[in-house]
Amino acid sequence: MRVAVDVMGGDHRPTAPVAGAVAALASDPELEVLLVGPAETVAAALAEARPAARRASRLRVVPAPEVVEPGESPVDAVRSKRGSSIVVGLDLCRRGEADAFVSAGNTGALTAGSVLLWHRIAGVDRPAMPAVLPTVDGRGLVFLDVGAGTDATPTNLCDFAVMGSLYAERARGIGHPRVALLNVGTEEQKGTGVAKEAFARLQAAPVRFVGHVEGRDLFSDRADVVVTNGFVGNVVLKTIEGLGIGLSQVLGRELRHSGFWTLLGAALAARTLRRVRRRLDYSEVGGVPFLGVRGVCVKCHGSSNAKALANGILSAAAVARGGVVAEIERALGALAPGSAAPARGPSLAGGATEGATAGA
Amino acid sequence: MRVAVDVMGGDHRPTAPVAGAVAALASDPELEVLLVGPAETVAAALAEARPAARRASRLRVVPAPEVVEPGESPVDAVRSKRGSSIVVGLDLCRRGEADAFVSAGNTGALTAGSVLLWHRIAGVDRPAMPAVLPTVDGRGLVFLDVGAGTDATPTNLCDFAVMGSLYAERARGIGHPRVALLNVGTEEQKGTGVAKEAFARLQAAPVRFVGHVEGRDLFSDRADVVVTNGFVGNVVLKTIEGLGIGLSQVLGRELRHSGFWTLLGAALAARTLRRVRRRLDYSEVGGVPFLGVRGVCVKCHGSSNAKALANGILSAAAVARGGVVAEIERALGALAPGSAAPARGPSLAGGATEGATAGA
Repeated sequence: MRVAVDVMGGDHRPTAPVAGAVAALASDPELEVLLVGPAETVAAALAEARPAARRASRLRVVPAPEVVEPGESPVDAVRSKRGSSIVVGLDLCRRGEADAFVSAGNTGALTAGSVLLWHRIAGVDRPAMPAVLPTVDGRGLVFLDVGAGTDATPTNLCDFAVMGSLYAERARGIGHPRVALLNVGTEEQKGTGVAKEAFARLQAAPVRFVGHVEGRDLFSDRADVVVTNGFVGNVVLKTIEGLGIGLSQVLGRELRHSGFWTLLGAALAARTLRRVRRRLDYSEVGGVPFLGVRGVCVKCHGSSNAKALANGILSAAAVARGGVVAEIERALGALAPGSAAPARGPSLAGGATEGATAGA
Repeated sequence: MRVAVDVMGGDHRPTAPVAGAVAALASDPELEVLLVGPAETVAAALAEARPAARRASRLRVVPAPEVVEPGESPVDAVRSKRGSSIVVGLDLCRRGEADAFVSAGNTGALTAGSVLLWHRIAGVDRPAMPAVLPTVDGRGLVFLDVGAGTDATPTNLCDFAVMGSLYAERARGIGHPRVALLNVGTEEQKGTGVAKEAFARLQAAPVRFVGHVEGRDLFSDRADVVVTNGFVGNVVLKTIEGLGIGLSQVLGRELRHSGFWTLLGAALAARTLRRVRRRLDYSEVGGVPFLGVRGVCVKCHGSSNAKALANGILSAAAVARGGVVAEIERALGALAPGSAAPARGPSLAGGATEGATAGA
């Protein structure tokens, strides 16, 4: 299992990606990592991370002198910076030299790049970016789309359901995942016209559809996969982030104004609070695959530390091993009878969507 | 200032509305309360709440034998149950016998009832239900629409901006409120077509428009009023509720499995945690007015306790005293030059929207 890692992505580049790669190699003996970035930068970060000899043998550096910055226009960056770590990393997968690509870099460039270089899966009109939300039971909930698009048609929402379900099942080990549609009430006739049509179509889709859920159900145990359009998904995801930050600030402010006994109490309860935080922690999930393209591209949060990147690399390996891309091609090729979809993993032959074998 | 209170609304009826009314009378000496509900039920709850003599003189019971249940069809309930506390309460305002109505009952029946009995304000195509979200600085953020509708046109979003701004300024004491549009990024050209057109129109609207905010800004200090459509607003509001419940469950579960020192710590830090919770507490806000109708109808959360209802009653008095309805009529009458809007408060003459004086 060969995972290419973008050394120049995220706020803590290059140390976090390199240290994350070293940590991932330590926990998965079947893993090989290709570090993609400017040769000297990678070498310096590697010297600092000091991988043990038996891990270093599974590490390779692939030079990529250019860097895509967070603010750049995604399509322009991908088109003009052929030597960037993002383009080089995606290209390694396209040529079959890597099985997956992991980056904490510019989301737009990653999604645009994977569509341009890998192409969409036949039958998928709109790819989707999932998030894994923390749940009370700790299993996590696959929530999509969180920002690959904004609007979504009922057909798009059905595709999200199929893709999210396969990701939950094949890469996150959730058997027979329950899929729900996010709405403003649980009755069948609630919400917008799109929601009503999507509800009807989801009942016929090849997923275990359990109906509507509301915002308050996202952290409960009512579903394993929840679909919505990219606008709503993005707003919900950022609301959760903002609330977490706000809570920490309020708590910090109150603690600064409290006396000895409260501080002692906080110190004594700190381990429990840390455990709670860990359950809700982004870095435990590490990264999520961009679903609907012909390859495995795992996006980590921009603020990812080494641990988050290590988990992102392991997630990418799980997505590749689970054959999530091939399963989506098979499922959505079957849904869209006109589109012949290849059944044996992502096409690595130039990202062409034509000339593939028929789906199962 | 006369506020009618629905004794038969909410999970804790009739005790919470009656105890809330008694508490509100204690904190506002200018207040009079009309308790609307079945005579014997109200009498029994009043006997339990035991208002002091000087408060009891500002309390009056208005009989309303019927009850609208949470699950009923709103429009049918309003049309068929003329003797329900909701219809009787709204009618008291319509006839000029009360200045505002407060209820923790069926939201749909309240909004449908106030539109049917009071009518919309001239120039308001779609009324909106705001929420007051907790913010780090404690001032709270007015967020609308949270569920009066689902879709919203750019014009609707502009109306929401004007109405939310006037509510924040006239009833919540926020001077020159900053108004923002919820979107998936802060750049001008982000989001759906509706968002782009709304952005352009908001720049010309009679509000202090500060641009886009994202979900993560809802708890920060970037805006005082944030507008979005009812679908997104409802999902965001319920997500916040769900996350709060989820956090409490996780914390409770962790504490049950912890040892003596952690429990001691939690006990010592409890007062601080209670202060944090109070800052985020729904019941501090009490209730929010349904904006865009010709009267003051304040909706409290279904799970409101006596304190939340007391705060809801005080909020209703503040909305009525601030002349929020008249200000909205003036502002949106001016925006829509064809529609003549009355300038002196809600019409109490049968809810007619025609035959009014010209707006300022």
